[in-house]
Amino acid sequence: MASAQHSRSITVLGSTGSIGVSTLDVVKHLGRETFEVAALTGSSNIALLAEQARNFNAKLAVTADANRYNDLKDALAGTGIEVAAGRSGLIEAAEMDAGLVMAAIVGTAGLAPTLAAAKRGADIALANKECLVSAGDLFVEAVKQGGGKLLPVDSEHNAIFQVLEENQRHALERVIITASGGPFRTYTLEQMAGVTADVARAHPNWSMGLKISIDSASMFNKALEMIEAKHLFGLAPEQVEVIVHPQSIIHSMVGYTDGSVLAQLGCPDMRTAIGYALQYPQRASLPIERLDFAKLSRLDFEAPDETRFPALRLARLAMTRGGVQGAVLNGAKEVALEAFIAGRAGFLTMADLTEKVMIELSTLPAASSMDDVFAADTEARRLAAQHIG
Amino acid sequence: MASAQHSRSITVLGSTGSIGVSTLDVVKHLGRETFEVAALTGSSNIALLAEQARNFNAKLAVTADANRYNDLKDALAGTGIEVAAGRSGLIEAAEMDAGLVMAAIVGTAGLAPTLAAAKRGADIALANKECLVSAGDLFVEAVKQGGGKLLPVDSEHNAIFQVLEENQRHALERVIITASGGPFRTYTLEQMAGVTADVARAHPNWSMGLKISIDSASMFNKALEMIEAKHLFGLAPEQVEVIVHPQSIIHSMVGYTDGSVLAQLGCPDMRTAIGYALQYPQRASLPIERLDFAKLSRLDFEAPDETRFPALRLARLAMTRGGVQGAVLNGAKEVALEAFIAGRAGFLTMADLTEKVMIELSTLPAASSMDDVFAADTEARRLAAQHIG
Repeated sequence: MASAQHSRSITVLGSTGSIGVSTLDVVKHLGRETFEVAALTGSSNIALLAEQARNFNAKLAVTADANRYNDLKDALAGTGIEVAAGRSGLIEAAEMDAGLVMAAIVGTAGLAPTLAAAKRGADIALANKECLVSAGDLFVEAVKQGGGKLLPVDSEHNAIFQVLEENQRHALERVIITASGGPFRTYTLEQMAGVTADVARAHPNWSMGLKISIDSASMFNKALEMIEAKHLFGLAPEQVEVIVHPQSIIHSMVGYTDGSVLAQLGCPDMRTAIGYALQYPQRASLPIERLDFAKLSRLDFEAPDETRFPALRLARLAMTRGGVQGAVLNGAKEVALEAFIAGRAGFLTMADLTEKVMIELSTLPAASSMDDVFAADTEARRLAAQHIG
Repeated sequence: MASAQHSRSITVLGSTGSIGVSTLDVVKHLGRETFEVAALTGSSNIALLAEQARNFNAKLAVTADANRYNDLKDALAGTGIEVAAGRSGLIEAAEMDAGLVMAAIVGTAGLAPTLAAAKRGADIALANKECLVSAGDLFVEAVKQGGGKLLPVDSEHNAIFQVLEENQRHALERVIITASGGPFRTYTLEQMAGVTADVARAHPNWSMGLKISIDSASMFNKALEMIEAKHLFGLAPEQVEVIVHPQSIIHSMVGYTDGSVLAQLGCPDMRTAIGYALQYPQRASLPIERLDFAKLSRLDFEAPDETRFPALRLARLAMTRGGVQGAVLNGAKEVALEAFIAGRAGFLTMADLTEKVMIELSTLPAASSMDDVFAADTEARRLAAQHIG
C-alpha cells in the first residue's frame, strides 16, 4: 500500500533518545517513499545527531544545548544541512513545515516545542509525558485548535488508541492500563524503604533509562499514565483503571458497555506503537518479533496495592482535582526522584513528599496559560527541595 | 443512542434453542424502539415458541415439525399471529421482509432457510455452523450477491470480527482462535480411548447441549470454527491458528504485520456476541457481568496437540483441499458423533472414521450448487455409517 501514499514530512524532536532512535529505525523500514525528514533535534550526543541528520538527509539539525552549536555546525560542515541550537532552535524545528512531529523530548523541556507544533496544526506523535500530565487541558485544546491529530506513542496509550472505537464513545465504560508492577511488585513496605537507585533501575520487561526505571519501580510512571489517559481520551477519573500484569504483554485494554473488553498485545518493542502512530490509520509491516502464545504460557494479573504504591492514589487525586495538580505532582516527584538517585531521600519518601506538596498547593487555580503551568511546576519543585532540605 | 435509530425488523430462525433464547433476551433489553420481531421459528418446543411469539408480538411463528402445525395453531389461537410449519414454513419465515435474520437453526436443516435470507439481501447474524463448514463458498457468494452483511455470532468469530480492521486487510497476518481444550485437555490417548458420552459432555466454561459439548471435548468444534473462519474472513489455511486457552476469557485474536495482536475478551455470556451482531456497528449496553482481571488472576495458553486432537489436522486438510471437503468432514463427523453417543463407537473413533471418509471422498469435485453440497454430505454419512456397521 506504501506506493499509493504520498511521502509525508516528519520532524523528530528528541531524535537521539530511545524513542527517537526507534522512530528513525521505523522511518528507515518504511522507506523514503513514505517519509522524508524535516528536522531532527538532540541534546548532548552531537555525533549521533549529526550521523542521523546525514543518514536521513534532514533539512535542519538542532542541539538543545546552545553551547554545542559550533560542535554540531562542524560535524555537519559541507552537508548543506541547516544547524540551530538552544530553545529557539527547538522552536524553529517544531515550526518547520512537517505534517507529523514525533514529540520525544523528555521532561518539561519538551513542552514549548511540542505546543508550537500542535498550534500550527501538525499531527503530534506524543511521547513526552509532561504535555498531558502538567499541561493537559491547555495542550489538548491547542491540538484541537491547530486541527492536527494527537497520536499517543506510549505503549499503554497506543494500545488503548488501537482498540478505542471513536464512533462508539457512548459505549466506552473504562480503560484498563496494565502495569508490570516493577521490580518491587512483591516487596513489603519495609523492604521498599531500604532500596537504592541501583536496585530500583532493574525493570523486568523493558530496557529503559534510569529515571523512567525508578518511576516504574515506584509506579509513578503509571500515575503519570493515568493522568495522560484522562486527557488523551477525555475520561472521567473513575474510568481510568490500573491492573498489574507482570509480563507486560497486554499493553492496555478498553472495556465497553456490552461486556466486551478489547486489548492490544505485543512483544515489548516500542516500534509497534511508533509505527502505528506514524502511519495511523494505516498499519505498517515491521520486522518485530511476533507473539507466540504457547511460549508465553501464561499472563498474570493482580490488583495494584495503593498502600505500597501510593503514587496511584496521588494520580487519582490529581485527576479529580484537575487544574495544575498534574504539574504539581510531576514537579514535586521530579525533585524527590533526583534526591532518591543522589541518595538524599529514601524510596518511599518520593510519594510522601509528593503528597505533602500536593496538599500544600491544593488551592492553586487552574492554568490559563503555559506560564501558569510553569509557575505551578516551579513552586512544586521549590517546596519539594525545601522539604528535602 | 437508541432513540436516534430506526426500529429494525428481525427474524429469529431457531428461537427456542440456546442462541435463540439469548437473542430474544438481547432484543428485550434493547427495547421495542430498536427491534420489532417479524418471524420466529422453532421445532418441538411449541409452548415456548408460542410464548415467545406472543411476548414479542411476532407476525409469523413457524414450527419446523410439520406434524406440530395444529398444536402451534391452537397455542396461538386468537392472537392474530400467522402460523406455518415444515421446510416450506421455514423458507417463508426466512423470506419475510426482515432486515436482519438470526440464523440459529442447528445442523444442515439451517442451510436452506439461511441461504434464502441471504439471497434476498438480509443481514445475516450467523450462528449455524453448516452454512460455512459445508457450503462456505456458495454461502459467502450468496451473501455477497444479496448485498447484506454477514455478522458472526459464535464467540470466537465474533471476537475476530470485533478486532478485524476491514480497511487494514493488507496488514492482517493471522487469526488466533482460542480453544478451551475441553474436559480432556490433559488426558492421554489411552484415557481418551475409554471415555463415554456422559464424561465428555462436561464442558469447563460454557453450558451447552450434548452434541456441542462432545464436539468441544474432541475439538471437532474448533475444527469447524477453523473452516468457518477461513470462509468468513477470506483467509488462507495457514492464516488460521488455534491456541488452547483453558479459561475461555480471550475469545479470539487477530495478528497484524506491525506485531500488534488485538483481542476481544469477556465473560462467557453469548449475549455480548449476539448484541454486537444485532447492533453492528453500534455497541449496546447490556447487563452482562464485567471482567475483573484481579479476580481472574491468570490466563493460560498452550499449543494444541494434534496427535491427541486430530480434528484440528483434519480441519487443515479440509481447508487446504477446499471444495466440499468441509461438508464431508462434517457429515462423517456427525454420524460418528451419534455412534459415540449411542455407545456404538469409541471417542477416538470419531476422528479416525472422519479421516477415513475424507480420504475416500478426497476427489469429489467442488460444489456448483447446494445439491452438490447435500450429495457430499449424504455420501459422507452413508460411508461413515457403513464403516460403523
